[in-house]
Amino acid sequence: MTDRPEVRAERRPFGVADKARLVAKTAQNPPAVILVEPQLGENIGTTARAMMNTGLEDLRLVDPKQDWLSEKALAAASGADRILERAVKYNRVADAVADLHTVYASTARRREMVKPLMSARAAAADMHARAGLKLGILFGRERDGLTNDEIALANTIVEVPLNPEHSSMNLAQAVLIVGYEWFQAAYEGPQEMVTLNRAVPASKDVLIGLFEHLERELVICGFLRNEEKIPSMIVNIRNMLQRADLTEQEVRTLHGMVTELRYGRRDDRPKRQPGVKSNAGEPD
Amino acid sequence: MTDRPEVRAERRPFGVADKARLVAKTAQNPPAVILVEPQLGENIGTTARAMMNTGLEDLRLVDPKQDWLSEKALAAASGADRILERAVKYNRVADAVADLHTVYASTARRREMVKPLMSARAAAADMHARAGLKLGILFGRERDGLTNDEIALANTIVEVPLNPEHSSMNLAQAVLIVGYEWFQAAYEGPQEMVTLNRAVPASKDVLIGLFEHLERELVICGFLRNEEKIPSMIVNIRNMLQRADLTEQEVRTLHGMVTELRYGRRDDRPKRQPGVKSNAGEPD
Repeated sequence: MTDRPEVRAERRPFGVADKARLVAKTAQNPPAVILVEPQLGENIGTTARAMMNTGLEDLRLVDPKQDWLSEKALAAASGADRILERAVKYNRVADAVADLHTVYASTARRREMVKPLMSARAAAADMHARAGLKLGILFGRERDGLTNDEIALANTIVEVPLNPEHSSMNLAQAVLIVGYEWFQAAYEGPQEMVTLNRAVPASKDVLIGLFEHLERELVICGFLRNEEKIPSMIVNIRNMLQRADLTEQEVRTLHGMVTELRYGRRDDRPKRQPGVKSNAGEPD
Repeated sequence: MTDRPEVRAERRPFGVADKARLVAKTAQNPPAVILVEPQLGENIGTTARAMMNTGLEDLRLVDPKQDWLSEKALAAASGADRILERAVKYNRVADAVADLHTVYASTARRREMVKPLMSARAAAADMHARAGLKLGILFGRERDGLTNDEIALANTIVEVPLNPEHSSMNLAQAVLIVGYEWFQAAYEGPQEMVTLNRAVPASKDVLIGLFEHLERELVICGFLRNEEKIPSMIVNIRNMLQRADLTEQEVRTLHGMVTELRYGRRDDRPKRQPGVKSNAGEPD
């Protein structure tokens, strides 16, 4: 046991954590999402939701075929009403991109066009390299995508690498993936990090206290009885417990478990070997 | 002009290209997707579609509340019927994961649990590091997610980093993102690569031929007439054309454009300066 005060849980944030920094960075330069002739209000709604998920805000609609503020659209947006309410309608793609400096065209089919082609991830990095410029991403019609004329207005083609045998996604999912990549690029170094969602591990003296307690009891109870093998068995047991990266609280729990297993009540213990008496020892 | 044979377009594949290699690599170890008590057949269908998009195949359903082979589910699957048809139903999470070596639990809310926590991207890398093991990813109920008991069966918690102010995704979208990351990790080095979706650029002698042709004509027609400024103007024009990274075909087109602009028919040319005659020169 230890009498040091418990170390407070210290979480290493990622993802939803460290909100202030996250917002500061993503707010710098979110690209506009330009839907070209979307057919269904519902798809505009789910697109708005995907934008909200990934920190995008500027929705532009070129000649939409249904109302983007219909009940269906708002229901599909699932809380992203703000994006729908602020969406702006344009008659032509050229008008919708007029104020932008760099435009990306999201396509599913490969085009015979001399134009840079980037994966969604590479495009996200490219967008962040263009901080300060106004950016936009074109998404085509649900059925037919973008025309070559529309793609010609873009600087770069963006493609989401997917299973070549089944690469068709719905509109909102394409927006989600491209937005997701943008959001990941906006967030400083979250991807390499693997954190333990946990309090800090116990210090080694605390852990060694547990090892010694356990080993003492294992000798007394007869688990460790072959003198030659004891050293290697102890190494194995210690390695196993090390790997668990225990917290102080967990070490206390294990101390308690060992003590109780040894000295707790045994009335209801199944008698494996009739005649062998319980040999309750001296608690320390 | 050049008489060398046109260089064949040489695409650097990524995404949908180089199918054989892609399939070979992703087939090695796709994780199972385990939906815990999904409420709607439609969500099971869209999940199947997302799995198909991202190369996942093994769908496991723990106590699903609706039929996953209903018309609605099949329509939502949008061609991923095979995955629904092969889906297996289990009564408990423990049964669904019984044959797996490593299990990931996808969660939206942070849990008070001592367990490794990874972003979707880090988890994808982790999965690939475990080639040869049987892997699975748990996804919880649409409304309530996974219980702590269910998460306790997983080795690692997976979280998709999203806008902290609006991080709720629907089931299929969560599967799509996690699957997408798995697929990206399965595909060798596609992310850093920025390719030109194009034929190889013209060699420099071809390009210089164009420069010289253009500059000669620009001098003759009088565009380049200020002797002092000519060298710097030529540098600017050459830089501009360099940047376009022209193919041989495009260079031929530009030769033709220059020639035609200079020597083509001028009958319908708007006369900007009445009295100035066209001074057709000698074609080379």
